[in-house]
Amino acid sequence: MGPLDYLKEHENESMAQLKDLLRIPSISAQSEHKDDVRRAGKWVADYLNKLGIKAEVCETGGHPCVVGEYKKAANLPTVLIYGHYDVQPVDPLNLWKTAPFEPIEENGYIIARGCTDDKGQMFAHLKGAEAYLKTTGSLPCNVKFLIEGEEEASASKLDEFIKNNKDRLAADVVLVSDGSQYGNDLPAINFGLRGIAFVEVKVTGPAKDLHSGSYGGAIANPIIVLCKMIAQMHDENGHITIPDFYDNVYTATQWEKDQYAKLPFSAEEYRTSTGAPKLWGEKGFSPLEQNWIRPTLDCNGITGGYQGEGGKTIIPSWASTKITMRLVPNMKPMEICDKIEAYLRKICPDTVKLEVVKHGGATPVQVSTDGPWLEAAARAIKTGFGKEPFFTKEGGSIPVVETFKTVLGIDTLLVGFGQQTDNAHSPNERFAIKDFHRGCRTSAALLDELSKVKK
Amino acid sequence: MGPLDYLKEHENESMAQLKDLLRIPSISAQSEHKDDVRRAGKWVADYLNKLGIKAEVCETGGHPCVVGEYKKAANLPTVLIYGHYDVQPVDPLNLWKTAPFEPIEENGYIIARGCTDDKGQMFAHLKGAEAYLKTTGSLPCNVKFLIEGEEEASASKLDEFIKNNKDRLAADVVLVSDGSQYGNDLPAINFGLRGIAFVEVKVTGPAKDLHSGSYGGAIANPIIVLCKMIAQMHDENGHITIPDFYDNVYTATQWEKDQYAKLPFSAEEYRTSTGAPKLWGEKGFSPLEQNWIRPTLDCNGITGGYQGEGGKTIIPSWASTKITMRLVPNMKPMEICDKIEAYLRKICPDTVKLEVVKHGGATPVQVSTDGPWLEAAARAIKTGFGKEPFFTKEGGSIPVVETFKTVLGIDTLLVGFGQQTDNAHSPNERFAIKDFHRGCRTSAALLDELSKVKK
Repeated sequence: MGPLDYLKEHENESMAQLKDLLRIPSISAQSEHKDDVRRAGKWVADYLNKLGIKAEVCETGGHPCVVGEYKKAANLPTVLIYGHYDVQPVDPLNLWKTAPFEPIEENGYIIARGCTDDKGQMFAHLKGAEAYLKTTGSLPCNVKFLIEGEEEASASKLDEFIKNNKDRLAADVVLVSDGSQYGNDLPAINFGLRGIAFVEVKVTGPAKDLHSGSYGGAIANPIIVLCKMIAQMHDENGHITIPDFYDNVYTATQWEKDQYAKLPFSAEEYRTSTGAPKLWGEKGFSPLEQNWIRPTLDCNGITGGYQGEGGKTIIPSWASTKITMRLVPNMKPMEICDKIEAYLRKICPDTVKLEVVKHGGATPVQVSTDGPWLEAAARAIKTGFGKEPFFTKEGGSIPVVETFKTVLGIDTLLVGFGQQTDNAHSPNERFAIKDFHRGCRTSAALLDELSKVKK
Repeated sequence: MGPLDYLKEHENESMAQLKDLLRIPSISAQSEHKDDVRRAGKWVADYLNKLGIKAEVCETGGHPCVVGEYKKAANLPTVLIYGHYDVQPVDPLNLWKTAPFEPIEENGYIIARGCTDDKGQMFAHLKGAEAYLKTTGSLPCNVKFLIEGEEEASASKLDEFIKNNKDRLAADVVLVSDGSQYGNDLPAINFGLRGIAFVEVKVTGPAKDLHSGSYGGAIANPIIVLCKMIAQMHDENGHITIPDFYDNVYTATQWEKDQYAKLPFSAEEYRTSTGAPKLWGEKGFSPLEQNWIRPTLDCNGITGGYQGEGGKTIIPSWASTKITMRLVPNMKPMEICDKIEAYLRKICPDTVKLEVVKHGGATPVQVSTDGPWLEAAARAIKTGFGKEPFFTKEGGSIPVVETFKTVLGIDTLLVGFGQQTDNAHSPNERFAIKDFHRGCRTSAALLDELSKVKK
């Protein structure tokens, strides 16, 4: 019996085990669940050890993480499997149809907090390894596990842990299943993430709020000044006007563009899902390209003057905004912060004082499309899901992926087993039972395919 | 002995009486002082009745007001004297050097809450009438008093009271002393106020906040859309770009411009007093003209998205702003609201939904510069202050002045006895003892001068 048959035969057992893990309320953001988070970590470490993969619960200064390692042979690739066993809070509890930590099966789904994000997807990789160990007595390549406990917490010590354990975590490629397929029954491999650069901008005019009757007309209004500056960030084609902003922007290869063209996509459905009256964006690019391979500039917030009920007739002393820019390869967060600051200083009139706080941000991530990893992963998905995967990107950042790239120097394969409609972070979180089992089989196939990649 | 000599001789008595009134903590905004406000009203009514001016405390539905009337002869002018006996709250109390309701004299000032705003200035008019009654046995013209008790409260029933008592309050001119001289020792007559029009503007894009990574680039950002709209409200000369906005704007007469040219004014001192790095404004007009005789557009507040500490990577669902425009004769508040709405609808892109709430506002007020009232008031100030007054305007609105104009159909003479440095609405409110007595004398002289105006 091969690993895939093993998984097929043990589906009920796999699901029962996952339910065990789902019963632990390991909410990392809530200190009263601190022990539960650790208990979930111990559950994972115990499971790995029972399989024969040496694992331990490691202190990070925050919630602990689990590190496991299986050594096969130095000439074979080493795969680092990342996942997390902590979960989101459950509020608002009254919107849950069932108890969040009492998993039930309904209409082909398992329902419980954390089932798709990320306990179910993470556990699928434990099952993939198990299938090999139980049927062949070993894994086909070197495998390391980094399963953490504060992915859903606001602060995390994992970055520091990775920096302090570079050798222990060294690998050739990272495998992460903590997301969705492109669509229902449309598995995908994500090979890139946008980066981000963040600045806070404040303009100050008068020393305090002035009476807009007595002073209005002779004193510049900081809100209007700021608005005029923000209005100069895009031209009429949705192109960003900051000088040299696009200097290092990569151009997607024809292969990449071909992948996006293959994706089932309805602009109208996309628009409807947001509720926006009309789509917008940089001319010459499709919405997916605008989201994935083009840099953007958004105001995340703006504030100034009186915002309560009714009116207050003032010229406010100041106004401020938070601006984030999404970056694509090869833009550098701090360079972009410098460029927007230079532009803001250039266009800011001398009727106000300008302050710019540059926070830097995250570097964009791109998995090499020439290398062997994407192809190997694609074959594994074909095996596990019975379908050719799509190749996609993601418009946001996943900090840990950037850390793997910058600290460990390795690419990450993002292979989501879930669906976008799984209610991750919402009440009634669910994970298709079918997707769980397909995930387990994909994991086993991945170990096989990745083991064949020449180091 | 004439009225002016009487006032000279009774200065100590006048000050002692004013202190009596200042000891009543008639804070209209605080319900625990409700009885104190009424007590101050009764004090004023009693004072008038003792002089032989028939007065009563009248119910308004809010704090009461005092109405008094002295009938002289039908062929003589009727002067309506307006003032208020309620005062601002005293917080922050710890910044007061003396107890707010225990008036003391120091360095030529009386210090107490309400001394300049408006008990002292209002009481000067009671003393002016008293001087006539005590020395001549009568007043030189018909005089009505409307002394109210909720000028400093957020809501007021006075407008309604005036509408319901049109005949009782009918007069030829209103006299208000509830402000400042143009500068220290620079008495002035204010002959005009700007009006105001208020709109609230909201643009909504997506139905809820979206992840700026996943959606950024393909969905218009409501903050940026709103900023672009606000940026289109002024051209590079500070001129407002709303179509037809200046349609009915009056042009100041040469006489008016001559008055402003006479005023001592330092643009640098003015700028320094605001703390703004540089003055701004519509090209072709001086700062005083920009403040007094030109319409303006200001954003009093703007809000949208995340405004807390740190960042939140969203495309916010909506953004909104509060816009007020200051109006000059002959602009109409609701017409201006209609014009800005039409313009906003024209420039708003279809990537967002636009909502405009039109609040209307206050009509600008202008005392006829051809009529006899200004000249008569100027002569009275010359008598009371020993100096020729300046003629000024005010950039803000005083709602009751508009009510006198629209409901009673009469002009208001604004003759402030105080100084801009009197700390009205602030701790350590003060009123120069010299200004109080000059105010009393000016009031007596005003009755004389106004009585000579041909009806």
